[in-house]
Amino acid sequence: MPQSYPPYEPSAEPAESLQDVVKGHRLDAAQEWLETHPPHVIADELARMDAVDAVVAFRLLHKDQALAVFEELEPVDQQPILEGLRDRSFLDLIEGMDPDDRARMLREAPAKVVKRVLAGLSPHERRMTSALLGYPEGSVGRYMTPEVVALAQDLTVEQALRTVRAKGADAETVYTLPVVDSGRRLTGIVELRELVLNPPDMMISKLVVTEPTSAYATDSAEQAARLMRETNDLNLPVVDSEDRLVGLFTIDDAVEVIEAADTEDVARQAGAAPWAGHYMAASVWQLARYRALWLSLLLVAATLTVGVTRAFEATLEQVAALALFIPMLIGAGGNAGAQAATACVRALAVGEVRGSDLLKVIWRECRVGLVLGSLLALLGLVVGTMVVSAKIALVVGITLVLICGWAATIGGTMPLLAKRLRIDPAVVSAPMVTTLVDATGLVIYFLTAKAVLGV
Amino acid sequence: MPQSYPPYEPSAEPAESLQDVVKGHRLDAAQEWLETHPPHVIADELARMDAVDAVVAFRLLHKDQALAVFEELEPVDQQPILEGLRDRSFLDLIEGMDPDDRARMLREAPAKVVKRVLAGLSPHERRMTSALLGYPEGSVGRYMTPEVVALAQDLTVEQALRTVRAKGADAETVYTLPVVDSGRRLTGIVELRELVLNPPDMMISKLVVTEPTSAYATDSAEQAARLMRETNDLNLPVVDSEDRLVGLFTIDDAVEVIEAADTEDVARQAGAAPWAGHYMAASVWQLARYRALWLSLLLVAATLTVGVTRAFEATLEQVAALALFIPMLIGAGGNAGAQAATACVRALAVGEVRGSDLLKVIWRECRVGLVLGSLLALLGLVVGTMVVSAKIALVVGITLVLICGWAATIGGTMPLLAKRLRIDPAVVSAPMVTTLVDATGLVIYFLTAKAVLGV
Repeated sequence: MPQSYPPYEPSAEPAESLQDVVKGHRLDAAQEWLETHPPHVIADELARMDAVDAVVAFRLLHKDQALAVFEELEPVDQQPILEGLRDRSFLDLIEGMDPDDRARMLREAPAKVVKRVLAGLSPHERRMTSALLGYPEGSVGRYMTPEVVALAQDLTVEQALRTVRAKGADAETVYTLPVVDSGRRLTGIVELRELVLNPPDMMISKLVVTEPTSAYATDSAEQAARLMRETNDLNLPVVDSEDRLVGLFTIDDAVEVIEAADTEDVARQAGAAPWAGHYMAASVWQLARYRALWLSLLLVAATLTVGVTRAFEATLEQVAALALFIPMLIGAGGNAGAQAATACVRALAVGEVRGSDLLKVIWRECRVGLVLGSLLALLGLVVGTMVVSAKIALVVGITLVLICGWAATIGGTMPLLAKRLRIDPAVVSAPMVTTLVDATGLVIYFLTAKAVLGV
Repeated sequence: MPQSYPPYEPSAEPAESLQDVVKGHRLDAAQEWLETHPPHVIADELARMDAVDAVVAFRLLHKDQALAVFEELEPVDQQPILEGLRDRSFLDLIEGMDPDDRARMLREAPAKVVKRVLAGLSPHERRMTSALLGYPEGSVGRYMTPEVVALAQDLTVEQALRTVRAKGADAETVYTLPVVDSGRRLTGIVELRELVLNPPDMMISKLVVTEPTSAYATDSAEQAARLMRETNDLNLPVVDSEDRLVGLFTIDDAVEVIEAADTEDVARQAGAAPWAGHYMAASVWQLARYRALWLSLLLVAATLTVGVTRAFEATLEQVAALALFIPMLIGAGGNAGAQAATACVRALAVGEVRGSDLLKVIWRECRVGLVLGSLLALLGLVVGTMVVSAKIALVVGITLVLICGWAATIGGTMPLLAKRLRIDPAVVSAPMVTTLVDATGLVIYFLTAKAVLGV
């Protein structure tokens, strides 16, 4: 349904936030604010507000606007609003949502809400929603739209357009039209564009892309989304295990899946648990909780460094100057390892590297690390000589070459090993590599010192 | 143009790679390989191969397939292939490309190639390509398609569809139809879907979304792409400074812009220079080059830690056990800082946090850091007591609280400060925060030790 929104300038910051207006109980001003902002901006503001204020503001929305705003919210932000609505508005809202958006919301809802939602739906909508909820989490089935206009194979362009007109009103998209045989098995797709641009009496079989790229409903949504980005398809037909058409995975959902996956990878890379909420809406306790586990594990792992330093305490006492370079050396190793790990995790995520490339990647990263280490060694020699002595500088230089080579190798190996073991490579976070390299790097340092200085 | 590709299973790895076949000079096998794989898979294989092999393989492609594969390649991978083609195939290829893809390729091409390409184009195509090249790098203008079917405001649905049929064949998309006034100023958009689903004699003014979301051609492509992801639009109309329609930014390009921006942010976050190429195609020297600058800068910055340790050498000599905990403490601080920095950089990138949130973010992260530090302090007390003594353990515990609070504050502050100074927040890499926190963390450690132990 076409709607009209005021022009929106993405770089401008709102003069007064919705939150300020609502907090001040100025409901007229709030109403005006809501009327002059597009749904995605309103949704963003609601996500930043606490639940009570958000519900107050949400209730001020017109019915159509409410649906548009609600669909822009992340599932985690939809919950409190839904719980704060009275029956009538509640039903309008959930009956108006697309089945895939509804299923995604319910996925994270408490059982009580799921029950209330399903009870409020018409039988047809309920059936579709339940079907989507039957697919595993993170699968294409959870994200696809089941309302698809499918065409028979033997139509003319005119007949096909008539089908689109008859059945298209409820469908989320009519731009990609799957073509199916009598058993509803997917045999091809035709674009609406082709139907519009070609003569009415042409057979659509001439316009059909046969054997199109498709996904199984149980496939990973992230993989399917990245596949769409590569093939530049607007919609990906989704089939069941018997190749029967069950839905379409639309590009707008694919973009969200990619962005969510990237956000998740980024969080994992920094050694934090991924979460789906809005940064500004999370409480201090929540933020701390997402980071606490990894931070504690890393600290425990870091006690290894205490052990290593202890084992070489005699060396350290003999040559106290060695202590001066510990932070710098393990820092350099950590950085080199983090660079390699991050590059490999990303290359795996976007499909440039596969699990089978393990040996090639190890060999590449090992050499990259040695090259970088040699460069740093030159710097290390200068600093070491200036601060202490040429002999200590030599120890620092050699250590830098070895640490960087070792760190890059580890950083490149771990994500690919994880991939082979079917663990998400992104859990091989930069901090994890850094911590591992810290302890082993100290061993390299002290052994080099013993060898060069003969202590 | 509809084309038929064999079914493709994304999770399956190719049994024999194109590279192996070409390296073995088995051209028949190569031809068969090319015929049985879709364009994006072929493009991925070509990107992994060295230039000479890639050209050999590319020449084996049929004309239509060649164009499809070529358009899937990144600009950096297109160069060597273009240079290896003879005139006829060269011209076919560039004349067949969409103007925006062509402009993007030329952006990174040497002057010689740009000249050869522009000389080979028809005047019409040349004009469009030159126009796109006139927009700044990274702007929407560089990515938009200038071939748009625009509609006048006073048409009926039937008349509008006739315009689409007459002018749509060359356009990259006809799904979003911008509506313009007599001065070609954008006044609205109408979706092809609405034209197809509504009666022929209806006036399109009833279906038009007035004042649609749009972007200026000089706007940042990344911002426009993220805006599209929020509004779920398939295409974003692009206007010049006088609001005249100049093109459409299509969702497939938006997805690529988002993915490239995320890859860039990820590289920057790990302290490496971002680059556009394929991981497996980059040489060891290239990979080293992208990482060398930051790694060296960080090492130089890390010499600060040498200075700090030196300044407290007396304390360290008095209580040698303090050295044992240096790697663990600065590691914990670095990790806490990296978590905060990464969370804030991502929140800025996806628009959850704005530059004006600086003070709020500082206050949040400071508290999060103190909470996490208190948790780690408990672990630190246990480890410290076990390894050395209760007194040293107390020093370690207090230091952990302070270091984590400080590190999280710095990690949260720096990206937002960068944003305010109009620097890409992603350059505030985790290693940068870590290095900064290393030196200041040591100061905190030694000062705490002096205070508690009274040395």
